[in-house]
Amino acid sequence: MTLVVTPARLRFDQPLPLRSGASLSPYELVYETYGRLNASRSNAVLICHALNASHHVAGLTAGTTDDTGWWDNMVGPGRPVDTGLFFVICVNNLGSCFGSTGPMSMNPATGKPYGPDFPVVTVEDWVRAQARLAEALGIERFAAVMGGSLGGMQALAWSYLFPDRVAHCVVMAAAPRLSAQNIAFNEVARRAIVTDPAFHGGRFYDHGVVPERGLQVARMIGHITYLSDDTMAAKFGRMLKNGDYGFSFEAEFEIESYLRYQAEKFSRYFDANTYLLITRALDYFDPARDHGGDLTKALAEARCAFFVASFTTDWRFPPSRSHEIVKSLLANQVPVTYAEVAAPHGHDAFLLDDPQYHSLVRLYFDRIRQTVGA
Amino acid sequence: MTLVVTPARLRFDQPLPLRSGASLSPYELVYETYGRLNASRSNAVLICHALNASHHVAGLTAGTTDDTGWWDNMVGPGRPVDTGLFFVICVNNLGSCFGSTGPMSMNPATGKPYGPDFPVVTVEDWVRAQARLAEALGIERFAAVMGGSLGGMQALAWSYLFPDRVAHCVVMAAAPRLSAQNIAFNEVARRAIVTDPAFHGGRFYDHGVVPERGLQVARMIGHITYLSDDTMAAKFGRMLKNGDYGFSFEAEFEIESYLRYQAEKFSRYFDANTYLLITRALDYFDPARDHGGDLTKALAEARCAFFVASFTTDWRFPPSRSHEIVKSLLANQVPVTYAEVAAPHGHDAFLLDDPQYHSLVRLYFDRIRQTVGA
Repeated sequence: MTLVVTPARLRFDQPLPLRSGASLSPYELVYETYGRLNASRSNAVLICHALNASHHVAGLTAGTTDDTGWWDNMVGPGRPVDTGLFFVICVNNLGSCFGSTGPMSMNPATGKPYGPDFPVVTVEDWVRAQARLAEALGIERFAAVMGGSLGGMQALAWSYLFPDRVAHCVVMAAAPRLSAQNIAFNEVARRAIVTDPAFHGGRFYDHGVVPERGLQVARMIGHITYLSDDTMAAKFGRMLKNGDYGFSFEAEFEIESYLRYQAEKFSRYFDANTYLLITRALDYFDPARDHGGDLTKALAEARCAFFVASFTTDWRFPPSRSHEIVKSLLANQVPVTYAEVAAPHGHDAFLLDDPQYHSLVRLYFDRIRQTVGA
Repeated sequence: MTLVVTPARLRFDQPLPLRSGASLSPYELVYETYGRLNASRSNAVLICHALNASHHVAGLTAGTTDDTGWWDNMVGPGRPVDTGLFFVICVNNLGSCFGSTGPMSMNPATGKPYGPDFPVVTVEDWVRAQARLAEALGIERFAAVMGGSLGGMQALAWSYLFPDRVAHCVVMAAAPRLSAQNIAFNEVARRAIVTDPAFHGGRFYDHGVVPERGLQVARMIGHITYLSDDTMAAKFGRMLKNGDYGFSFEAEFEIESYLRYQAEKFSRYFDANTYLLITRALDYFDPARDHGGDLTKALAEARCAFFVASFTTDWRFPPSRSHEIVKSLLANQVPVTYAEVAAPHGHDAFLLDDPQYHSLVRLYFDRIRQTVGA
């Protein structure tokens, strides 16, 4: 059974105060829902998306034949997050480029796209916007908030920003804050974009161009960090497109063609200003920062139960980063289930259909169902 | 005691046949020498440089106060490679940008800089050019050929290309061929350069510009892969330049400033075409390729003794890559000393003054001295 979905849109006129001190109004959020909210409103699950994903987490967009959700193997009828049992919501975050208010949207102050004037947003800002949407939809408390990578950071932020409004927090392949190396990769990607002459200081919309060269380089860098060395070796190795060296700088190795192709595709649909904003939100996420660097204190308000998962070959956010989260939760005597999944796929493993991983999520959602009465 | 050195230059009129099928003539090699060749000509050591280094391996360039060699902690009077005992040579490789013939040199066919018409060169091509220089200098057999990273690949290539002309091969922080991930990082760096509008298809010299934006991004990517995650964490962590978030895309984290600064410096002296050529030489290096993928067969001709070293936190060429080399040497019953140095600095560790590492090199060069009578 395939879910056919149509995105919904909600406008908020009350200004959203942001962590930077700026505020945003009005703004719109685009979201999708799957399944049905039960009578006791206890079966709602919020899925948070990562860098380059959208609100379209599952099913097929109405009127298309191939626009399948980015986590369709995880969310849907009979899936680990079973939309036959749960009412699932996914929201496109503010500043993103899939319909919610972002740099491509019209700035009411100028009548032109925001571009570089769109305020810098944080993970906590997104969570506050998601909380407002939940209120509008009549959801007082989520059975679970779930996400991977940057999505996992949002789930984590829910646990301390709105401790009474989330029963379970499901955090995949995440980290409690970026390392210097993580920030460094983000910074190189941003430099590639910002120094592309077609970027025009972020006002490229006015020039009818897109900084596609910069975006492509940014995407290639990101892409490398999502895959494990082993996966790349197994999938591409040193395979040559034409069987022999061409003594040129064309794409001769399969890995070169693959990265170029994926990057070109990405640069056709992703907004350059959004790339800057979302990587910056990643850089800034650091709940311990307001607590003298003490993550345990930062998570002291959390009241929900946790499922934390990491993947053995993830070198972007390796298992040690999840250990930091788990240790702090244990120190706070919060119930936590932790799984270190042996998967070869690197950071991207959280998106893939690994049977062991999916079984664990399914089991955990069975437990959620029992505790919240979904 | 500080060595003061002046580079020398030698012109070769006999064409150099290259692996690509092209040939190069005439060409010049810039090199430096340190110490004195003994009467039996048995104490010569060739140091091979890596991606962004030059012939200036040690000492102070005459007429300068701060132009110290890139491996001055390793090579010099009383250093592990003691120039009081050994006659050390380092050659700027063909295609590089520090004086030997390369893309910035005049192409005699056009009267303009070679630019993109400079032939694609390989590690083996460099070694053949180095061998010609050795002949010109009257060195029939090197006591040792030594290098780290790409320099280690050249040392390895000496062992099977000229088995009778090298007594010891010293290979630091190297790999017998790049992984798909290694190639991927090179490819992104090249894309950053090639897609910079100032690159002008490699003919930027004619336009009086330099693709500095692309070079900077390329350098930043490289730089990240040279450092360990731990070193970055210890040196920069999440330290902020101004103590607080600025909610901007300026360099706010110390790691951002550092990478930008280093990249800007690099883009002022390094040639973009050279960056392409040298990364391609890295991609192509694969001695096993002509032997059905069998590295043991590829190294079967080696007659020298080996010292191989790797560094525990090197994630560009981790110890497992050195193990591949060592296993093949052992399978060939070649004498090999292997050291896995516990160093926190990542790939760059081979360049740093680690006492344990330097002691091991010193010991090995003592042994070399005894075997060759230096």
